[in-house]
Amino acid sequence: MIDRLIEKIDKTENPTVVGLDPLYEMIPEKIKREMLEKHGKTPKAVAEMFWLFNKQLIDGLCDMVPAVKPQIAMYEKYGTEGIRVYIETTKYAKEKGLIVIGDVKRGDIASTAAAYASHLEGVDIEGEKFDIWHTDAVTLNPYMGYDVIEPFIKPCIDNDKGMFILVKTSNKSGESFQELKLCVSGFNDTLFFQRVAEYVRDWGKLAMGQNGYSKVGAVLGATSSRFSILGSFGKKMRKMMPNTFFLIPGYGAQGGTGKDVKDFFDKDKRGCIVNSSRGIIAAYQKDSKYSDENFVDAAREAALLMQKDLRR
Amino acid sequence: MIDRLIEKIDKTENPTVVGLDPLYEMIPEKIKREMLEKHGKTPKAVAEMFWLFNKQLIDGLCDMVPAVKPQIAMYEKYGTEGIRVYIETTKYAKEKGLIVIGDVKRGDIASTAAAYASHLEGVDIEGEKFDIWHTDAVTLNPYMGYDVIEPFIKPCIDNDKGMFILVKTSNKSGESFQELKLCVSGFNDTLFFQRVAEYVRDWGKLAMGQNGYSKVGAVLGATSSRFSILGSFGKKMRKMMPNTFFLIPGYGAQGGTGKDVKDFFDKDKRGCIVNSSRGIIAAYQKDSKYSDENFVDAAREAALLMQKDLRR
Repeated sequence: MIDRLIEKIDKTENPTVVGLDPLYEMIPEKIKREMLEKHGKTPKAVAEMFWLFNKQLIDGLCDMVPAVKPQIAMYEKYGTEGIRVYIETTKYAKEKGLIVIGDVKRGDIASTAAAYASHLEGVDIEGEKFDIWHTDAVTLNPYMGYDVIEPFIKPCIDNDKGMFILVKTSNKSGESFQELKLCVSGFNDTLFFQRVAEYVRDWGKLAMGQNGYSKVGAVLGATSSRFSILGSFGKKMRKMMPNTFFLIPGYGAQGGTGKDVKDFFDKDKRGCIVNSSRGIIAAYQKDSKYSDENFVDAAREAALLMQKDLRR
Repeated sequence: MIDRLIEKIDKTENPTVVGLDPLYEMIPEKIKREMLEKHGKTPKAVAEMFWLFNKQLIDGLCDMVPAVKPQIAMYEKYGTEGIRVYIETTKYAKEKGLIVIGDVKRGDIASTAAAYASHLEGVDIEGEKFDIWHTDAVTLNPYMGYDVIEPFIKPCIDNDKGMFILVKTSNKSGESFQELKLCVSGFNDTLFFQRVAEYVRDWGKLAMGQNGYSKVGAVLGATSSRFSILGSFGKKMRKMMPNTFFLIPGYGAQGGTGKDVKDFFDKDKRGCIVNSSRGIIAAYQKDSKYSDENFVDAAREAALLMQKDLRR
């Protein structure tokens, strides 16, 4: 997965991942009206809106970007119908040649972690195999330690899958815990998230790709440096985790810019993929030259602008 | 929710929550065979097995225990069909008068956290309200700080819901992060999870119940004390969080005993609910006097033994 991701980024010359995180308010009126008429004011109607919205976005963006990252919460909100459309979306994006990162941030132990690993390895029912989730990688939450990660290592090795583990998140309130200063022999003055980063780096050795990067990546918020007391944030993290690919949320609507993420890249301008959600998929709502009818064009323009900003 | 939970515990004289965490291997052969015949070797067949298994367990246990805690991962493993049966289970358990704790361990920020809050508040589609998840409380992962928690506070206050936030988990590898010693002015030598505990205690003031306990509870593993360098673990945590209700996993199959959890209770022998999953729902597989035919009786006996152990 990590090698395919790097190849796709090189080919599209675009280290952008599109966050397919639909909200009801983002859906163009025409789609909304049609689905409400067809399915009533129901979770099914909203799920079908998301599907039509996503499908057009995927069709419009699949030649420009290497990957999409659907945030499962947006779908889970609507229960079974929402989950069904999350899966339709991942499956369709994969058919269109995109790398699919399921933003699920799961994290649990033992048999529970093993159950969540179905996001990468599917299930086997009496010898019949089902892919179920159609994702190439997932995000994980490391609060419970290596137990969270372990069942995901095997599909990384055997089925070329990947994972991105939360290290430093893009939100201000994350600092309550992530920025706590440690007092550990050999790690005095290390911040909590740096210790997590060291573990992620070391876990990464268990599943290396061919291009110098591990299939075990890290999530580092675009705006992390603003919320961190660690100076030269990007440079230090890149140096500390030379073989760790970074998934970077927080660009665009959350305030991150190309300048914020510059130092996360390696000397070959690789090693990162930067996410934008609202800033791309709901771009039509921010620019009066666009309307419901051409929301995909607005998304394409936003993705182009982001590409330029990142390549600068 | 917290007051209803306390009342139910008093009424059943049993601070036990049954973890409805089915695994394929736990399903009695008869149910398995019937569902494979009816639905083939499919996710739907497994989901239907879980439903039949759960329904009988709920029917058999609903007079003896105050609450159930389905672990969503076990259902999510099978995709849409699994989620459908998770929801059927929560709905049925609620109809049977049980308090339902959704063990989802979600944790995200901003609009994403708000979407996950549907687990407690459902959704509103153009004025039509849908409950969706039928859960009274959920578990949450605090890695990303207060942003994770915020959208869940309102349903706690307005709709009498609750949450349990991970503090100290029952697994050994959790110590990699949870046991890190901090070097923070005023908190020197505090362990990481203690700082989390302080936040959880303080967030709890935002949504107090009537009986002295907050609707914002904490997850503390039954075996935490074994994996902690903090002495007198239970006593210290109870003292530090006098108004925080504890949800305690790790009893039974994971090794925790009544003795391990004794100190978590307050002086009135309240303030905790202890989870057992496999130890109850798969009890029939551990005792040759039981078989596929009477797995519910085995579960009842296991729940009774647990009640005795906890009351001792």
